[in-house]
Amino acid sequence: MAALSGEVGEGLLARRLLDKPVLLYRRGSGDVVAMEDRCIHRAYPLSEGRRDGDRVVCGYHGFAYDPDGCLADVPSQENIPPGARVRTYPVYEQSPFVWIWLGDSGVAALRPPPRVPWYADGTGWAGTTEVLHVEANYLLLHEHYLDLTDVFVMHPEVVPPDIEVLPQLDEVEVSERSVSYTRTTPPSRLAPWEAEITGLSAETTGSRREEGTFVSPALHVQHYAIAPETGKSHELLRIQGFTPQSPGVTHVFLQMARNFAADDARVAEFLRTMFHEWALRDFVVLETIQRRLGEETVPRRDINVKADRAAVRARRIAMEMVDEETGRFTLNRILATS
Amino acid sequence: MAALSGEVGEGLLARRLLDKPVLLYRRGSGDVVAMEDRCIHRAYPLSEGRRDGDRVVCGYHGFAYDPDGCLADVPSQENIPPGARVRTYPVYEQSPFVWIWLGDSGVAALRPPPRVPWYADGTGWAGTTEVLHVEANYLLLHEHYLDLTDVFVMHPEVVPPDIEVLPQLDEVEVSERSVSYTRTTPPSRLAPWEAEITGLSAETTGSRREEGTFVSPALHVQHYAIAPETGKSHELLRIQGFTPQSPGVTHVFLQMARNFAADDARVAEFLRTMFHEWALRDFVVLETIQRRLGEETVPRRDINVKADRAAVRARRIAMEMVDEETGRFTLNRILATS
Amino acid sequence: MAALSGEVGEGLLARRLLDKPVLLYRRGSGDVVAMEDRCIHRAYPLSEGRRDGDRVVCGYHGFAYDPDGCLADVPSQENIPPGARVRTYPVYEQSPFVWIWLGDSGVAALRPPPRVPWYADGTGWAGTTEVLHVEANYLLLHEHYLDLTDVFVMHPEVVPPDIEVLPQLDEVEVSERSVSYTRTTPPSRLAPWEAEITGLSAETTGSRREEGTFVSPALHVQHYAIAPETGKSHELLRIQGFTPQSPGVTHVFLQMARNFAADDARVAEFLRTMFHEWALRDFVVLETIQRRLGEETVPRRDINVKADRAAVRARRIAMEMVDEETGRFTLNRILATS
Repeated sequence: MAALSGEVGEGLLARRLLDKPVLLYRRGSGDVVAMEDRCIHRAYPLSEGRRDGDRVVCGYHGFAYDPDGCLADVPSQENIPPGARVRTYPVYEQSPFVWIWLGDSGVAALRPPPRVPWYADGTGWAGTTEVLHVEANYLLLHEHYLDLTDVFVMHPEVVPPDIEVLPQLDEVEVSERSVSYTRTTPPSRLAPWEAEITGLSAETTGSRREEGTFVSPALHVQHYAIAPETGKSHELLRIQGFTPQSPGVTHVFLQMARNFAADDARVAEFLRTMFHEWALRDFVVLETIQRRLGEETVPRRDINVKADRAAVRARRIAMEMVDEETGRFTLNRILATS
Repeated sequence: MAALSGEVGEGLLARRLLDKPVLLYRRGSGDVVAMEDRCIHRAYPLSEGRRDGDRVVCGYHGFAYDPDGCLADVPSQENIPPGARVRTYPVYEQSPFVWIWLGDSGVAALRPPPRVPWYADGTGWAGTTEVLHVEANYLLLHEHYLDLTDVFVMHPEVVPPDIEVLPQLDEVEVSERSVSYTRTTPPSRLAPWEAEITGLSAETTGSRREEGTFVSPALHVQHYAIAPETGKSHELLRIQGFTPQSPGVTHVFLQMARNFAADDARVAEFLRTMFHEWALRDFVVLETIQRRLGEETVPRRDINVKADRAAVRARRIAMEMVDEETGRFTLNRILATS
Repeated sequence: MAALSGEVGEGLLARRLLDKPVLLYRRGSGDVVAMEDRCIHRAYPLSEGRRDGDRVVCGYHGFAYDPDGCLADVPSQENIPPGARVRTYPVYEQSPFVWIWLGDSGVAALRPPPRVPWYADGTGWAGTTEVLHVEANYLLLHEHYLDLTDVFVMHPEVVPPDIEVLPQLDEVEVSERSVSYTRTTPPSRLAPWEAEITGLSAETTGSRREEGTFVSPALHVQHYAIAPETGKSHELLRIQGFTPQSPGVTHVFLQMARNFAADDARVAEFLRTMFHEWALRDFVVLETIQRRLGEETVPRRDINVKADRAAVRARRIAMEMVDEETGRFTLNRILATS
């Protein structure tokens, strides 16, 4: 995941993704362009230049590039060096997210962005988006959101009043490339925040069903449903894209959605603030762990407990995908040069 | 040396020692606990958590540890993974200092903390303690305090008025593991600071005996006695623990003591301020040298002069002890895994 | 190039050159001394000490050095260790520049500082000097000033009004160790800055001849002459010494000169400000490129165009000189130790 749709427009958006400098902008047609943010002449970032229609003009010597990456103008001479081009990346936009493929170009078609149960307009769902940065590896984020037993220690105020310990996970469902857990919490009165957003009395009793899914190394989806004993289910969706800026820094592209109080600005603001502060508190912990891991010179083996089942499986999937990707890329290079 | 006794109490004290994160706290019984400051579950520092009686509770998922390091509670499940524990370190407290052993645990008994001529209560001695940090290697500190000929250049105001050059060292006494020098300065009038703290007239004539001892790589002791021609000897003791935080940063645990004016707050404050400012001026020089050494890519051989005899010997002892320790540790590992 | 003449005086000037700490000062005789800025005793910078006549006294233990680098005094003892000396470097001053030779001393005589068409007093030339720092490799600076086609993009306000594209280079003249280009711009009206400094009407028509010379890896000279159709030629000289502080930081020693309006303070200030701001704008680009190159883990091959002919050749000469120097030095060491 490279950006939120709303971030990409007429301007030149520079973003470091997987430790590569990427330039994003939107053509007159509305399509998003993603190219390496580096003039092929002298390494100056194209994002420091300017647009000329759909072209990008370097801010150093004025080299101009078409949206397909082809060098289109060298101001100091008539002709263009043949074949000169900057690398571009396949783009797939599924609002509110923009996906790009930075890997071996031959594999892009085999790696479509993950499908998620997106909510569509006119379904009664509403939500907000946000971009955050964490100075922690993206796998620490996945692991964190796949094991929420920390809430009793870190966020006790969000736990419903009658719950003293989170129930065990119902099940951990594993496919070849994804992992998902569900947990059902027995009926209890509402936590203050649940009463606040649903408009129900704090004495209302309800059960909760929580589902967290590692959809891909780039995407985590969490579904939280409060089911009062009478009345409809109130559902929250937290969709998070985790894209490494570098091994130690991650972009978080966040979409929060709800299937109730769609037009209630107060509920929207309450949820936005609550989940924003929740995330920042989590990030402080993850950044502390990342700094500690960075100080360690010898790899250490962590102890895992039952609550870590989904997290452990997700890390393994991600590692396998990296190995497979690296192997395939290496093989392609061998074939190309032999 | 890990801390001053007064630093360790109910709270969780985090300190990086020999490039390892260490947690220190005092049990209800008064004993000091030293353990690795790292939850075995997800590497979060235990010092960010809280105490629960003598236990430490991790601030991430609530794992609780007993003072012996054994994992005692995992809130998300009933049972505890067998044998799970965080590493603890042997502690030896000799007020005002807390010593711990971070090396191979089998060797701890062979490496008791060094014995020094500690002054005891009720002997007429009084003093102050202080913790400082220097961005310099601990050996630069030892070398600095084993050759005080810099005072003529850096601290000329402390030199007695009739002394124009420091006498040569009387002798340098070397044992297997320590080195010590003495220097006797011929009778001269008192320097202003000497008159100030002794209450003697500036015209008083006295000789001085200075003794500096590299007791161990962790400890330097300096003894300074002003002997007026009539009257009792006024003695100062500067005991300094030098513990690497990392190769380039050192904790300095300082105890200053005197055998006179024990109840005189003005003298206490005068000495505290004078030696504090003296130390800071020295540290600026040592930090400058450390930065320079860090810039050098090829090791350089320094020139030594006579005044360096004790310093050169101390460095050699420290290096031999490191080699021996490393060799022993390696040997133990070989024996353990074969 | 180590300094401007005006920078070196009674004080101790510390400067890092080619990643080496250098101390510069001027003897009573007026000659400049250059020595390694490092006491041979304990690595403390001599520049932190003080002068004692022509000697330098270390600020740590008071070791004193003569201008030829010989250790002349050790305060703590009578005799001086025989042969003890700090390294000094050959100096050649050609005002307003001070040159030193940091390489293998046997080669110094083979590498005299480059000769340039220096303007002499009483010739009607006047100018200013300045020292700047850029966080970019010195070769990025050479390449930048050997291809000024960036002015249309970065400094369009300096281009004469009737010129829409810079003419091709007239010729690129290459000697074994230097490279130089000339470019003639056809007659056009004056740019505002040209009118301002010459005092001519903006409607005056004139041609321009620009000559840029890579004199050596340490020196770039640029000559710019505005030739009105009637009247004398107005000439500007920009002489720039580029000396690496480290691979990623460069000292720029700048001399600007003109053969007109020698006594006009307003013109002097106008030119100083204009070229200062021009330089700073260029440096932002070069520093951005340097940071980007620093992030790249695999070397990339840039595309070159015709305007880069001189720059490409200059880089090759510099690389050859480095190789030759390194090889010679290595050979000398082999001969010395065998």
